[in-house]
Amino acid sequence: MKERPIGIFDSGLGGLTVFKEVKKLLPKEDIVYFGDTARVPYGTKSKDTVTRFSVQDADFLAGLKVKMIVAACNTSSSFSLPALKRRYKIPVIGVIKPGAQKAANATKNLRVGVIGTRATISSGIYEKEIRKLNPKIKVASASCPLFVPLAEEGWLKGKVTKKIAARYLKALKKKDIDTIVLGCTHYPLLMSIIRSVLGKGVRLIDSATQTAIAVKKIIDEKEMRNPKKSKGRYRFYVSDEPELFKKIGARFLGSNIKNIKRVDVGA
Amino acid sequence: MKERPIGIFDSGLGGLTVFKEVKKLLPKEDIVYFGDTARVPYGTKSKDTVTRFSVQDADFLAGLKVKMIVAACNTSSSFSLPALKRRYKIPVIGVIKPGAQKAANATKNLRVGVIGTRATISSGIYEKEIRKLNPKIKVASASCPLFVPLAEEGWLKGKVTKKIAARYLKALKKKDIDTIVLGCTHYPLLMSIIRSVLGKGVRLIDSATQTAIAVKKIIDEKEMRNPKKSKGRYRFYVSDEPELFKKIGARFLGSNIKNIKRVDVGA
Repeated sequence: MKERPIGIFDSGLGGLTVFKEVKKLLPKEDIVYFGDTARVPYGTKSKDTVTRFSVQDADFLAGLKVKMIVAACNTSSSFSLPALKRRYKIPVIGVIKPGAQKAANATKNLRVGVIGTRATISSGIYEKEIRKLNPKIKVASASCPLFVPLAEEGWLKGKVTKKIAARYLKALKKKDIDTIVLGCTHYPLLMSIIRSVLGKGVRLIDSATQTAIAVKKIIDEKEMRNPKKSKGRYRFYVSDEPELFKKIGARFLGSNIKNIKRVDVGA
Repeated sequence: MKERPIGIFDSGLGGLTVFKEVKKLLPKEDIVYFGDTARVPYGTKSKDTVTRFSVQDADFLAGLKVKMIVAACNTSSSFSLPALKRRYKIPVIGVIKPGAQKAANATKNLRVGVIGTRATISSGIYEKEIRKLNPKIKVASASCPLFVPLAEEGWLKGKVTKKIAARYLKALKKKDIDTIVLGCTHYPLLMSIIRSVLGKGVRLIDSATQTAIAVKKIIDEKEMRNPKKSKGRYRFYVSDEPELFKKIGARFLGSNIKNIKRVDVGA
C-alpha cells in the first residue's frame, strides 16, 4: 500500500498547481495525475454532470491502484466529494476544506472573500465550510468566469486582465475583507493581478498549497509514506490529445511535462 | 421523409444562431436541436476528440429520424464533416463552406480575414475552402479564444471587450482585408464590437445566415419540404442540465426556449 502512488485528478490543467505543491512537500511519493481535458471545464456545468464526470475520473485513478485520491478541482470538490468518499475505501480529499480552514485561521476582521467558477460559487460550499469553523465570519463571494480562459490564454498581466479583475472584484472590495480564497486552481496564475486590485491589506489563500499540506497530514497520520529513497515518479493521463496539455501545463508547473498518455474515460 | 425534422447539433449554445436563421427561412420545418453542453467547448480540443464527440451528437439526431443533419459548430464542421458524410445516407451540412462561399463572392480586393476558435483556425479549413473557390484570394486568420467566454458571460459591449477585440484583430487590420468571416457561431453576438474595431469598410460574414440559405437550398433541391401548413415545432436536447442553456440561450435567440430535455450522449 505504501508504495502506491497518490492519485490527483482535475477537469484539466488547473490541478497541476496542486500536483506541484504535493510534489514539493512529498518529493519521494509517486504521483499519477489525470486531467479530463476532453470535457474541461467543469466550472460552467451542473452538479449532476460534474459529479458523474468526477466519479469517472476517480474510478480511473482507483483502477491504477492509487493509495489516495485528491480532487484537485474546486468545482469537483464542491459537488462530488460526498459521492467519492462513499465510493472508495482509500482516503479521498478535496481542495475546499483546506482552503476554508486556512482562511478561517487567517482572517482578523472576520470578513472573508471567496472567488471561483460559477458552479463553485453557486454551490455555496466555501461559505458553509468557513462558517462551520467559525460562525462569526462573514463570507462574501463572486464568480469570475473569465479568469480560467484568461489564465489558459496566458494573459496573466496587462490592462485588460486588470480591468476584468477590477470588475469582478468590485463588490468584494466594498465588503472590507482582509482575506480572500482563490477558489479555483487556475487563479493562482492571476495572483499578482488580483493582489494589485485588492491591495496589500488582503491576504490571498491559494488552495493548492493548503491541499498539499492536508495531503501530507493524511499520509503521515495513516502511515502511508513511501519508504523508498529515490525521488518520486510522475505519470500524466489526459482525455484529449496531450499536446495542448503539455504546452499550457508547462506554464502551470514552470517546467516541462513528460510521460503524458491519452486515455478514454467514461466512454 | 418530408415530414421528418431537420436536425441541428452544436457543442453548446452557439448553434442557436443557426437554428434561428433556419427557423426564419423555413418556418414550416420541424427542428430538433442538440447542444453538447456537458462537454462544451469543442474549440479548444483536438481533431480526434471533436470528431468522436460530433459523431456521437449526430448519431443522437439520426436516432430521432431527422431528414438532414446540420453541424452548426465551426469546430465540428472543420474536423468531422468527412466522417459524418460517410456515416449517414441523409444530407449532412456544415457551416464552413457556406461562409467561405459568401466571403469569396463578397471580397473585392481579394483579401479575406477569418476569425474562429483555436481549433478551427489551426485546421486551416477556411483558407482551403476559400482558395478552392478562388486561388487568387489571400486569406489571413486569427484565433480569438476569449470571444466565446465573453459572449457567454454576456459582455457583448464595453471597453474591456473592445480592447480584447482590438488585440486579437490587430494583425488582421494590417492585412487590408475588405471581408471577414465570423468563423464561430458565438461571434455574431460580438458583431458590433468587431465592426467598431475593423471599421465600416470591412464586410462581416456570419456563417449562421449563410448556412440557413444552404439548408434551404438542399431541402428544395431534394424536394424535402415539409408539406404541412402549420408552423414548425421545435425540440431541444442538451447533455447537461437545461437551466443555463435556457438562460443564456434566450440571449442567442432573443426569445425564450421551451421543450428542453437532458439526454446522455456518448456515455
